[in-house]
Amino acid sequence: MRTTLTAVLTIALTTSAFAQSTDANAQRLIDEILASPHGYETLAYLTDNIGPRLSGSKGAALAVQYTTARFRQWGIDVKQQPVMVPHWVRGEERARLVSHNDQKIVLTALGGSVATPPSGITAEVIEVTSFDQLAQLGREKIQGKIVFYNGAMDMALVESGRAFDAYSQAVVFRGTGASRAAAFGAVASVIRSVASASLRTPHTGAMRYDEKQPKIPAAAMTTEDADLVHRLLAKGERVRMHLVLTPRALPDVGSFNVVAEIRGSQRPDQIVLIGGHLDSWDLGTGAIDDGSGVVMVMETLRALQKLGIKPKRTIRGVLFMNEENGLRGGRKYFDNAAQREEVQKHIAAIESDAGAAPPIGFISTLEGKNLERVQARMNFLSRISAIRFESSKHTGADTSPLTDAGVPGFGLVPDPRHYFDFHHTPADTLDKVDPKALAQNTAVLAALAYVIAEEGLPVSP
Amino acid sequence: MRTTLTAVLTIALTTSAFAQSTDANAQRLIDEILASPHGYETLAYLTDNIGPRLSGSKGAALAVQYTTARFRQWGIDVKQQPVMVPHWVRGEERARLVSHNDQKIVLTALGGSVATPPSGITAEVIEVTSFDQLAQLGREKIQGKIVFYNGAMDMALVESGRAFDAYSQAVVFRGTGASRAAAFGAVASVIRSVASASLRTPHTGAMRYDEKQPKIPAAAMTTEDADLVHRLLAKGERVRMHLVLTPRALPDVGSFNVVAEIRGSQRPDQIVLIGGHLDSWDLGTGAIDDGSGVVMVMETLRALQKLGIKPKRTIRGVLFMNEENGLRGGRKYFDNAAQREEVQKHIAAIESDAGAAPPIGFISTLEGKNLERVQARMNFLSRISAIRFESSKHTGADTSPLTDAGVPGFGLVPDPRHYFDFHHTPADTLDKVDPKALAQNTAVLAALAYVIAEEGLPVSP
Repeated sequence: MRTTLTAVLTIALTTSAFAQSTDANAQRLIDEILASPHGYETLAYLTDNIGPRLSGSKGAALAVQYTTARFRQWGIDVKQQPVMVPHWVRGEERARLVSHNDQKIVLTALGGSVATPPSGITAEVIEVTSFDQLAQLGREKIQGKIVFYNGAMDMALVESGRAFDAYSQAVVFRGTGASRAAAFGAVASVIRSVASASLRTPHTGAMRYDEKQPKIPAAAMTTEDADLVHRLLAKGERVRMHLVLTPRALPDVGSFNVVAEIRGSQRPDQIVLIGGHLDSWDLGTGAIDDGSGVVMVMETLRALQKLGIKPKRTIRGVLFMNEENGLRGGRKYFDNAAQREEVQKHIAAIESDAGAAPPIGFISTLEGKNLERVQARMNFLSRISAIRFESSKHTGADTSPLTDAGVPGFGLVPDPRHYFDFHHTPADTLDKVDPKALAQNTAVLAALAYVIAEEGLPVSP
Repeated sequence: MRTTLTAVLTIALTTSAFAQSTDANAQRLIDEILASPHGYETLAYLTDNIGPRLSGSKGAALAVQYTTARFRQWGIDVKQQPVMVPHWVRGEERARLVSHNDQKIVLTALGGSVATPPSGITAEVIEVTSFDQLAQLGREKIQGKIVFYNGAMDMALVESGRAFDAYSQAVVFRGTGASRAAAFGAVASVIRSVASASLRTPHTGAMRYDEKQPKIPAAAMTTEDADLVHRLLAKGERVRMHLVLTPRALPDVGSFNVVAEIRGSQRPDQIVLIGGHLDSWDLGTGAIDDGSGVVMVMETLRALQKLGIKPKRTIRGVLFMNEENGLRGGRKYFDNAAQREEVQKHIAAIESDAGAAPPIGFISTLEGKNLERVQARMNFLSRISAIRFESSKHTGADTSPLTDAGVPGFGLVPDPRHYFDFHHTPADTLDKVDPKALAQNTAVLAALAYVIAEEGLPVSP
């Protein structure tokens, strides 16, 4: 009840002179960010000069060093929060259809996959489009075979702007498909790439093993190769694939979350967290996933610092390590916060991990009136774009331990229609980011963080 | 003069009862082709079951066997015309920027390239956008370096429908760039892929050496990698690349053009040639380049045979071998025709080697009134699409020896706007071909061939 009163009081404040000064500062912040070349330059360094940044790699270590140094250069308080991360290394990956003139199959190992024997596996391919179908086929049909999960993204959903829903539907085979196939005696599992576009482009991503099942190699074919195998099987032909994957899981490596902040002037103990992740898949250079998010966080703090804007509450930027294949950084951050009894002092957790196409809104764990109030308060963002707020249970992976513990979550939503054209592929490169859209996203995120840090969140239970 | 009179007489005929029966047959031909599943099935076999068909490969040999057998199955007279072809094999291809965290560069060897030493070449990269600029830099700047030709396709030209012009402009570096760079002491040459779209997609294609220059390895980077190297150089950074290419030129291999025909009922010695090429680059499965063309030729003859339509003149289908890296098939066909004094008996040479997007017209070596007459005669194709005829000096590579000798040439033009998204890449696969558009192209090509075979060409000098 007390919370509610405070909240209502907070809303009252937003119509006062305080709000006017908040608005003026938010506009200065937006102006600074839209005019700054620093965001794109930082992204160019991360992607062009450092390149891929998979956890445990040299690129990841360089990214920690570079971003830390950059914050220091800007005079911003920054710490490295130690975290042990997995060190999975891709190795060789190739396949061919021995049954069909040794045609090459373009595929990539899924992150975390075990290796085939060095000489590879040769086995018949069996196609399924659901786990139910897999179970119906059972051990008799699956034993000794390579299971091919042919789950396409629903392109109507993608084109209607619900690409993340289409992704969630299609990605189920990536996470648990190998172990579920192994339970019926499969020798390997190959999914159709979770992709909204392809020029024979493989999409990687994390998978995880059920420890109760034998660990079998797991890969993703391009949609073209998936279509090829599907057509051959549909003609009633026997398809045999030779598959070589040589990834290795090396010992865990010491790494860091990079944590920087602008301390609050009145309630420094209260924290508005803004986050993105430093690590990226090894195939591309992680421009949209998630160099862009990293840069938005960095630019927000840089602009506040440069303008000398001191929000009442602390704005903390966290560049998480290991979002892609372990979430160790996100969990470590939460565990440290829990140890310090700081979790509930996070009044909001804003994550950016969906690229840098022009901004269209935020998802939030808030609902109903609470979210409407935020939407109304942020209406001034219409100078950039019509920014919509929509409810969602999940607003980001790295901040999910916080939001699961009740911290209000926000996730920045750039136009998602082409995100899965590039996501987790070799084509996630700097040219996919428009500097103007990157700055617009940054401005929107910075404004939301600043307003919440200044005014709190108008939440009633 | 005699030719002219004959021609005018021919035109006169087209308005008579003969023309009516020609039209009726042309419509039956179109109906048969539009309703037939055979074209797409044949293409599916060529691409899915056989796959890549580079000259000298097992795939190329299988394609010769398969298409020959298919003609025989249909009761069509078919011969294999022997031709010795190059046998270039790709091998390994990889590169990285040793100056920039060993970032991977995605590239592919150009067809015909020599190999690097097995351990590769490591050298500084120097960028040029023209041969003039190369010459201005001269030996002092070029010696010992990897020359990077950064010539982008003009996308405004592509989008306006002149993709082949944009291709012609950009492709100059692919053909002769290596030798021109070698003339100034370069150790390798890497072009920007000639591409109208990319998801980190390398585009291969043939290159040729000037025998007076040292032979240096030649490759094509993806547009993303070209942009990366360009940006780093533009920042004033020194870029050093490690490059490994291990292609091999094996001894020439005996292969074949596949030549099938429907003999003319009245002037069997006069030939309307329709052609496509059986070979394809090794990266993809050659669905648009040129499985589609092959299928259009095969389907035209199949439909004529099935319907029992006997044109006055012979319609000869030629499935050429080695269009991509040598043109040996096209030259061999011409040389044989010349030996038999048959060149001038070719009254038209119609080539299909531009994919299978919806048909928009033909290019032709005919001009002015002659072409207008053909356009007018073929107006009935409007039931399929508005088919435009446009003059061009070059109407196809395989038929260029014939058209250079004065044979009127035609080249089928499907909508070219996305052709160079896929051309010469791993993404040239069956899914890029729409069965309906394939049938429409076939119908348009078949109708033109049939009308010319029936009525001759209305050409005046």
